[in-house]
Amino acid sequence: MFNPVSCTAMAPLQLGIFGAGQLGRMLAQAALPLGIRCVFLDAVNQSPAAALGPVFSPDDMHAFVGQRRLFTLEFENIPLSSIDALPEAATIFPPRAALAITQNRLLEKSTFDALNIPVAPYRAVHCLTDLQNAADQLGLPMVLKTATGGYDGKGQYVVKTAHDIARAWETLGTHGPLIAEGFIHFEREVSVIAVRAQTGDIRYWELAQNHHHQGILSHSVVPAPNIETLTPIAQQYMQQLLEHLNYVGVLTLELFVTPEGLLANEMAPRVHNSGHWTIEGAVCSQFENHIRAVMGLPLGETDLIKPCVMVNIIGQYPKREDILALPAAHLHDYEKEERPGRKLGHITLMPPKSEELPALIKQLIPLLPDALALK
Amino acid sequence: MFNPVSCTAMAPLQLGIFGAGQLGRMLAQAALPLGIRCVFLDAVNQSPAAALGPVFSPDDMHAFVGQRRLFTLEFENIPLSSIDALPEAATIFPPRAALAITQNRLLEKSTFDALNIPVAPYRAVHCLTDLQNAADQLGLPMVLKTATGGYDGKGQYVVKTAHDIARAWETLGTHGPLIAEGFIHFEREVSVIAVRAQTGDIRYWELAQNHHHQGILSHSVVPAPNIETLTPIAQQYMQQLLEHLNYVGVLTLELFVTPEGLLANEMAPRVHNSGHWTIEGAVCSQFENHIRAVMGLPLGETDLIKPCVMVNIIGQYPKREDILALPAAHLHDYEKEERPGRKLGHITLMPPKSEELPALIKQLIPLLPDALALK
Repeated sequence: MFNPVSCTAMAPLQLGIFGAGQLGRMLAQAALPLGIRCVFLDAVNQSPAAALGPVFSPDDMHAFVGQRRLFTLEFENIPLSSIDALPEAATIFPPRAALAITQNRLLEKSTFDALNIPVAPYRAVHCLTDLQNAADQLGLPMVLKTATGGYDGKGQYVVKTAHDIARAWETLGTHGPLIAEGFIHFEREVSVIAVRAQTGDIRYWELAQNHHHQGILSHSVVPAPNIETLTPIAQQYMQQLLEHLNYVGVLTLELFVTPEGLLANEMAPRVHNSGHWTIEGAVCSQFENHIRAVMGLPLGETDLIKPCVMVNIIGQYPKREDILALPAAHLHDYEKEERPGRKLGHITLMPPKSEELPALIKQLIPLLPDALALK
Repeated sequence: MFNPVSCTAMAPLQLGIFGAGQLGRMLAQAALPLGIRCVFLDAVNQSPAAALGPVFSPDDMHAFVGQRRLFTLEFENIPLSSIDALPEAATIFPPRAALAITQNRLLEKSTFDALNIPVAPYRAVHCLTDLQNAADQLGLPMVLKTATGGYDGKGQYVVKTAHDIARAWETLGTHGPLIAEGFIHFEREVSVIAVRAQTGDIRYWELAQNHHHQGILSHSVVPAPNIETLTPIAQQYMQQLLEHLNYVGVLTLELFVTPEGLLANEMAPRVHNSGHWTIEGAVCSQFENHIRAVMGLPLGETDLIKPCVMVNIIGQYPKREDILALPAAHLHDYEKEERPGRKLGHITLMPPKSEELPALIKQLIPLLPDALALK
């Protein structure tokens, strides 16, 4: 186990992060008060994390590594070859094996299967015939997805009728191995986020209920309502995954709530958009606890401070002064260029009197250029 | 009034801060999620705020100013000539007049007098005879202080007996105008911190009870106990000061609780050590609200989230892993070199169940190299 140096003084601890987007930015924001400085590797130069440390280009891996021994990531789809390029003395958390699995939906599903974590019925699709067979066996509608790559609804095709089968294949057939998933009539989606330390210590945050708009997370409500009986099950699935993968850091598991119980949708080996509420809403945030876990430090408490709602800012910024005029609104501006469908920031509403939360959400809606699923 | 640009995107708002110590660091940490970038002016190069923006040397005022139009400070004892060197289009908050007053204890006291805010009896001291007269009129012990400069107990001499008078004069007589203050037998010290916006809107945080050790703040307890009847009085004094000074930003007023009521000790025209608890303990922190006020943005709510205790780390760092192993401990490491009497960081304890706070403080004490007044 990595033993951190106790005293910081003028030589703060160092962490290398693959990726310099908003998750890297918020990781580094959480690291700074602990006396831990982050550097980043990203092909994009003007990135959200650049405010907090140098961003090295993938061509400059040598400088990114430097004398650093600990690494993590903010994005699961980094090439495994980049990780393999790290020197032997370097350690990366979450572990490589966890990344390999989460980079491939087929491996991910079979991991769920192996741990008896229920998932929607699925079939691997390598050719049009596979796809036709999948349609017969899973029924329509079904969702065809690329096994690798793709997020926020990209790399997906909803096969509604038999006519869509050929078109789905045309669209995605050249994108490597595919997976067809039976359509789930779920009531709602929740996510459980947990962190595991190098010691094996595990902490869980409250489950969030997630609302999407056109495949992108619109907002998360915490705690997810009516979740008491489901929480221990979700945490048990999470524990199995964390221990199976000998995981270190934050892991997110998205789950569908169905009449038959919880179904695992997918996992993300990183801090997650549905956990941004933890910055204000939990004793220790997902960002700080990920840093603590990776650096070999004790984990912080994950207790809920107050019920809250996290709302994404997508595509276009609202007026800063409008948002800040709302009582108990916390703005997180990622300093990104406006672009349709792009996550530009988020707002967490957490009034001291929780009963004021619904009224506060109503006040927020007209202030957002796109209120997404809040409407 | 300054009108902030609404949209941030790739051109974040800019703020220049005089000073790059821990207060500048925490101001910039609060500014970043709002999409506001800070630059600093400081003679010290390797300073705590350097993690968040460029630190310009006083020789490089021109680069510090750049195209920026808004400025603030983290330290009241910056030379007024530095402020006067700002271009005409630039605005600094708090206003120059407030700085001039708080840079001189005699002006500060006469401001309190003018507003009928009670203070300890005092005399201006310009010569040894003045000092002898002050001793006769105020009685001994009394405290001799430099009117300008000095903080954390520096530039002060406690005159206990008639023998000390000459020695006090020898020690401080060449340090410019002096002030002799009657010794106050106070029960405890509290501070009220408030913020005033450009619109005149004022918000107050809960009063903190401050405990000192050898002239340096050891820890602050929030809310200060048994303060209900005193809070409206403290807030009234604060309101008078803010409006008299046409103040913008965070202002701190230290008050003695005496059998005769509250006495003003001194004010600080900035975020204050006794307000560090607001990062976790209030809806909007003193740092974020100072930024909001200076940038012309609406103020955030100052409501208390949970009772908490802020403990300073002085002189030597504790083991990082020891502190982080405490439940509900928030570490703020300023990344400073260890030096006796130096503020290196702080820890805020804020358990979800407030009744656990006393036990948590007891757990913290043996972990600190110097537990100061917590002992």
